[in-house]
Amino acid sequence: MSKYQALKEKVLKANKDLVKAGLVILTWGNASEIDRENGVVAIKPSGVAYDNMSADDIVITDLDGAIVEGTLNPSSDLMSHLALYKAFPEIGGVVHTHSTYATAAAQAGKNIPCYGTTHADTFYGDIPVTRALSKQEVESDYELNSGLVIVEHFNKTGIEATACPCALIRNHGPFTWGKDCFKAVENSIVLEEVAKMAALTLRFNKDAETAPQYLQDKHYYRKHGKNAYYGQKESK
Amino acid sequence: MSKYQALKEKVLKANKDLVKAGLVILTWGNASEIDRENGVVAIKPSGVAYDNMSADDIVITDLDGAIVEGTLNPSSDLMSHLALYKAFPEIGGVVHTHSTYATAAAQAGKNIPCYGTTHADTFYGDIPVTRALSKQEVESDYELNSGLVIVEHFNKTGIEATACPCALIRNHGPFTWGKDCFKAVENSIVLEEVAKMAALTLRFNKDAETAPQYLQDKHYYRKHGKNAYYGQKESK
Amino acid sequence: MSKYQALKEKVLKANKDLVKAGLVILTWGNASEIDRENGVVAIKPSGVAYDNMSADDIVITDLDGAIVEGTLNPSSDLMSHLALYKAFPEIGGVVHTHSTYATAAAQAGKNIPCYGTTHADTFYGDIPVTRALSKQEVESDYELNSGLVIVEHFNKTGIEATACPCALIRNHGPFTWGKDCFKAVENSIVLEEVAKMAALTLRFNKDAETAPQYLQDKHYYRKHGKNAYYGQKESK
Amino acid sequence: MSKYQALKEKVLKANKDLVKAGLVILTWGNASEIDRENGVVAIKPSGVAYDNMSADDIVITDLDGAIVEGTLNPSSDLMSHLALYKAFPEIGGVVHTHSTYATAAAQAGKNIPCYGTTHADTFYGDIPVTRALSKQEVESDYELNSGLVIVEHFNKTGIEATACPCALIRNHGPFTWGKDCFKAVENSIVLEEVAKMAALTLRFNKDAETAPQYLQDKHYYRKHGKNAYYGQKESK
Repeated sequence: MSKYQALKEKVLKANKDLVKAGLVILTWGNASEIDRENGVVAIKPSGVAYDNMSADDIVITDLDGAIVEGTLNPSSDLMSHLALYKAFPEIGGVVHTHSTYATAAAQAGKNIPCYGTTHADTFYGDIPVTRALSKQEVESDYELNSGLVIVEHFNKTGIEATACPCALIRNHGPFTWGKDCFKAVENSIVLEEVAKMAALTLRFNKDAETAPQYLQDKHYYRKHGKNAYYGQKESK
Repeated sequence: MSKYQALKEKVLKANKDLVKAGLVILTWGNASEIDRENGVVAIKPSGVAYDNMSADDIVITDLDGAIVEGTLNPSSDLMSHLALYKAFPEIGGVVHTHSTYATAAAQAGKNIPCYGTTHADTFYGDIPVTRALSKQEVESDYELNSGLVIVEHFNKTGIEATACPCALIRNHGPFTWGKDCFKAVENSIVLEEVAKMAALTLRFNKDAETAPQYLQDKHYYRKHGKNAYYGQKESK
Repeated sequence: MSKYQALKEKVLKANKDLVKAGLVILTWGNASEIDRENGVVAIKPSGVAYDNMSADDIVITDLDGAIVEGTLNPSSDLMSHLALYKAFPEIGGVVHTHSTYATAAAQAGKNIPCYGTTHADTFYGDIPVTRALSKQEVESDYELNSGLVIVEHFNKTGIEATACPCALIRNHGPFTWGKDCFKAVENSIVLEEVAKMAALTLRFNKDAETAPQYLQDKHYYRKHGKNAYYGQKESK
Repeated sequence: MSKYQALKEKVLKANKDLVKAGLVILTWGNASEIDRENGVVAIKPSGVAYDNMSADDIVITDLDGAIVEGTLNPSSDLMSHLALYKAFPEIGGVVHTHSTYATAAAQAGKNIPCYGTTHADTFYGDIPVTRALSKQEVESDYELNSGLVIVEHFNKTGIEATACPCALIRNHGPFTWGKDCFKAVENSIVLEEVAKMAALTLRFNKDAETAPQYLQDKHYYRKHGKNAYYGQKESK
C-alpha cells in the first residue's frame, strides 16, 4: 500500500464533496492537499468523472509537478495549486471550481464587496479579482501564471492569504484554500454562497454599501485568532 | 434522564428542520425554545455540524445565559435569543439563519414591502431592517445588542412582535419567532420565500407597488385573530 | 366506500404532484376536480399538510360550496374554484398555487408577454394579470370575487379560457385549469417555467420583444385543435 | 431483435440523461443519433413521457424522415435534427431542449458573448442566436426551416459546427450537437451553465467585457485539436 494512501483517501473525499455541494458539474473542479514533510501534493486526475474515481486515481506529484505516484495525468490546474502552496506556507489544501456565482463574479471582473457578516465570518475584506493575464502569460506557463497572479495580488496588497482564503481569477473562476483540503472545500462553499448573496444584495439595492468596518472586524475576529469565541474549544 | 429531554428533542428537530428546508448550510443557523415555567432556554450548541447532533448536545441555559445543562458552548447568538424572549413574553421559539434571500435583503438595508398575499398571510406590513449598530454596540455585548436593536424597532413602531414575527438585522441576517420553535422555523421558511418573491417582483417591475392595505388586512385577519377562518378548527 | 372514491384519489394525487413539482411549500396550494354529472367538486382540505393527507381528507362539495362528503373544512379558495367551473363549462380541473415566479409576476402587476415557443405551446397570447379587486370586493365574498375577476377578464377580452388556461390574480398568485386536475397541474408547471423564462429574458435584454404572431400561432396550433400534429394520435 | 437495438438503447439513455441533468421537464426535449453507415437516425418519440419510455419506443427513420422502425410518431423536431446531420457530416448526435437559461437567451434574441473560460473550454466564440424565420418559413416546413436557419448561420459566418457545437433558435430554444448523442447531451449541460453564468455576469457588471481573444484561444485549444493537453490520453 502507498505511504500516501491516507492522503489520497482524503483528497478523493474532498473532490467528491465538491460535487455533493453542487459546486462542480462534469469534471470542472479539483481539490488537492500538500504533505509538506514529504514534499508531495495529492491532486485529482485531469478530466476524469467523479463517480467512479477511486483513491488509486489520485495523483501524487512533487512540488515541481513531477509525478511521484499514479498512472493518470494530474489536473491541468496542478501548476496553479503548486504556486499557491509555495507562496503560502501556512496553507495545506487548495480547491478550484467553476461554481456558478463565483465564476460569474470573476467574469464580471468585479471584486465582491463585504456586504455583511456571512462574508466577514470567513473572508476579511473584499474578495479580489486578479488582474488580467497578458497574452504572453497565457501562451506560456498559463496554469503556473494563473497561480502566480493570485500570489502577486496578495503580495501587493499585503493581505494575508489566511485572512482571505480565496481569489477570483479574472475571466476564469475561483480558487480557495485552507489548512487542509476539507477546509478549502468549505471555503468554496462559503464563497459561492457569499457571491450569490452579493448578486442578490445588488438586486434589492443597486447602491448597497459595504458593512461598517467595525462589524466586519467583529465577525472575523469572533471566529479567527486568539480572541475567537465561536464554536467549541476543541475545534479552534 | 434530563427533565428537559422533551424540550431538547424538540429543539434538536427544529434545528435539523432548518437544514432540510434549505435555509442553513454548514453551521449557519440556530433554533431555540423557551420553557417559561422553569425559566430556561434550549438552544443549539455553537459551531457544531447538524448531521451528528443529538438531543444531548442541545444546551439548556437560564435567562441570563448561564448553562444549566450541557457540556458544549451554546450558540454564540444565545444572547440575541434571550433578549427577544425577555422583551416578547408571548413568543416561545426563536430562529436565526443566514438564508440566502432574506440575508441579501438585510445586506441591502431595505425593508421588504408587502407586495402580495403570500407576505400578508404571515407578516403584517413591511418586514423591517433594523438600524445599524454603533461601533460601541458591536464592540461590547454585540450579540445582546443584536437582539435589543430588534426589540427597539418594535417598541418604536408600536407593531406587535406577533403581528410581524421576524426582523432583518442590517448587514447580518434574519431572526424569526413564533409560539414555539417549530412555528419559528415555519416563519423562517415563509420569510425566505417572501424575500425571494420580492426580489423577483422587482425584476418584473422595478416600480412595483405594495398590495392595497385592505387586501393585506384581509389576508392577515383571514389567518389570525378571532375572525380567522383559514385551516381547521382544531389548529386555530 | 364513497361513490366519489376515484375522484378523491385523483384529486389527492394532483395535490401531492404540486408538492413534487416544487410549486407548493407548507400548505400553499390546492387542486380540485369537478364531476359535472353529479354536480360535485372534490378539493383539498384547508391548511392541512400534504404528507399525511389521505383520500378521505379530500372534501366533496356541491357547486354552491356546501359539503357533501368529508369532515374537514374545504380549502378557503373553494369559492374561487367554483366560480371558474361555473363560468367555464369546458374545464374539469382547477389549481391554485403560490409558485415563486408566477406569484412574483402577479405581485408585479404585469402580464407575461409571449417571448417564445415554450409559452406559445401552452398559452395563447399574454398571460393576464387581473384588475385589482375593490375594497368592497375584498371585504365581502373575497374568494368568490377572486374567481369572478378572472371570469370578467376572459369575458371582456373574448379570449377562450381553454386557449389560455391560466390567469394571475393581482397581488396574489396564479390559477390554472384544464380538462382535469392533472392537466391543471401540468399547466401550473408550465406557467411557473414560462414565468421564470420571462424574468430571465428581461435580464438578458430588458427591451426583449414578443415572438412574431405567426410563430405563436404555429406553435399553439401545432399542439391544439384539429390540425395538431404534436404527440401520438391516441393522446390528441 | 432489431439491428438498431444498441443505437436505440443509447438514444434512450441520452434522452433520460437530459431529464436527470435538469434540462427537460414534461416532454420538452429530444436527443437523437445518426448511424451514417446505414443511413438512419434514432430519435425520441413525440410527446411521450420519459419515465416509462423504453428502447422499443425510440423511432428509427431514414434521412428523409420516413419511419424505418417503430410504432410511434417521431419527435416533431425530427426534420430539424435531419437538417443538421445532412449539413454537418462530422456530427453524430443532436439534442434539442427548452432548458431555462439558454431558452431565455434565445427569447432575448441576444448572442451569448464569451465572458470566460467555462464558455471557451467548449464553445469557440459567441453562442449565436439565429435570425427570425419569415412567416412563410414558419407556415410551411417549419421544423425543417428551424434546422436550416442554423445551417445558414454557420455557412454565412464560416465558423465550423464542431468549434461551436450549439445554436439558439430565436424565440424558441437551444440545439446542441456532438460526435454522438452523449456528447450532444454534455454540450447541452455546458450551454445551460454558460447561459446562466452569462446572465449572472451581467448582474454583477452590466458592462462586462468578453474574455481576451488569446485567453479564449488558450482554453479552446487546450481541450481541442492536435495540441490538446487536458484530460487523459485515451479520451482525446
